[in-house]
Amino acid sequence: MKIYEEELAVKTTKRIEFVNITHKVEEVVKNSNISNGICYIFVPHTTAAVTINEDADPDVVNDIISKLNVLVPKNESFYNHIEGNSDAHIKSSLIGVSLEVFVNNKKLKLGRWQGIYFCEFDGPRYRSVWVKVLGE
Amino acid sequence: MKIYEEELAVKTTKRIEFVNITHKVEEVVKNSNISNGICYIFVPHTTAAVTINEDADPDVVNDIISKLNVLVPKNESFYNHIEGNSDAHIKSSLIGVSLEVFVNNKKLKLGRWQGIYFCEFDGPRYRSVWVKVLGE
Amino acid sequence: MKIYEEELAVKTTKRIEFVNITHKVEEVVKNSNISNGICYIFVPHTTAAVTINEDADPDVVNDIISKLNVLVPKNESFYNHIEGNSDAHIKSSLIGVSLEVFVNNKKLKLGRWQGIYFCEFDGPRYRSVWVKVLGE
Repeated sequence: MKIYEEELAVKTTKRIEFVNITHKVEEVVKNSNISNGICYIFVPHTTAAVTINEDADPDVVNDIISKLNVLVPKNESFYNHIEGNSDAHIKSSLIGVSLEVFVNNKKLKLGRWQGIYFCEFDGPRYRSVWVKVLGE
Repeated sequence: MKIYEEELAVKTTKRIEFVNITHKVEEVVKNSNISNGICYIFVPHTTAAVTINEDADPDVVNDIISKLNVLVPKNESFYNHIEGNSDAHIKSSLIGVSLEVFVNNKKLKLGRWQGIYFCEFDGPRYRSVWVKVLGE
Repeated sequence: MKIYEEELAVKTTKRIEFVNITHKVEEVVKNSNISNGICYIFVPHTTAAVTINEDADPDVVNDIISKLNVLVPKNESFYNHIEGNSDAHIKSSLIGVSLEVFVNNKKLKLGRWQGIYFCEFDGPRYRSVWVKVLGE
């Protein structure tokens, strides 16, 4: 069994933004030299998340962001958290901070239209994404 | 360490539908001959997802579908994606495309009422589900 | 490769409640004696879930609960499931029942503000959480 790990740096430029990190994750898989296994992606923040969705038409992730903002607006009369970013924490739990993708032939195995997105919900900030590959 | 992988075919018959794939996934675990490990389930589509929920009363998944359609209706004035299926992409990211289940004694280890559902959000289509088992 | 597994018991005291299980999961990782790998957390229930979010200010998880109750109220005219807890099943699929966290140096590797929460959506009940550690 082989295990390999790297930390990615992601700089976000808006309060809410999806950043395509597919190529960065692919680079980690290549560096791991693991032929067959699983690639784990983990976001160590509580106001961000990670998701997989279409990477062809940028309107797709923009529509996801628009809808998340309607479902979970920045301000609600019942929010008590004093930092004023409860919406970002809620979005983080709805989307999730951990994901796994298959690794075959030393490459990420994604569907034809899939890309991996870091989801910023309370930026702009400097963020980290942890990537671990386990296999043989 | 042993690693085993299969691809499942799922045919959906409606635009939005949850298909119980528990037995198909169990079959992959059996074929893997792995006694103790993890079974990873990955949906390689951007308008579908995978979830675990009750498989006793079919009204449960029907109620989940009804509510998802209320929360994320097919049409919203602010959707820009030209294919007209932004709701399906949003539902995919809310539910998620990757899941893992424990494998013990060469069997999937699920809770008493749990089943694994392929979630179609833009069917009917022919779909794939990737299943990988890693363990010993 | 080493594999280790334990079952945690969680007692909930309200219908909807997030219980911080970080220390219990850390204890399992310690007991596993695994230095480097992945810790898998699985909730074997269909009206509960597991999430990672801030563990500093308790208002964060309270705000998440308040918002989930607004998005998915207990009663909707279109719910058909006869047990009257469809909202709990829906919340379970929105948040998810499986998660993974990295293990490094025989410890859970979480972000600075992150804690692991068992999410009760139909309590109070006696619940289980399955934890498996795989690595070397």
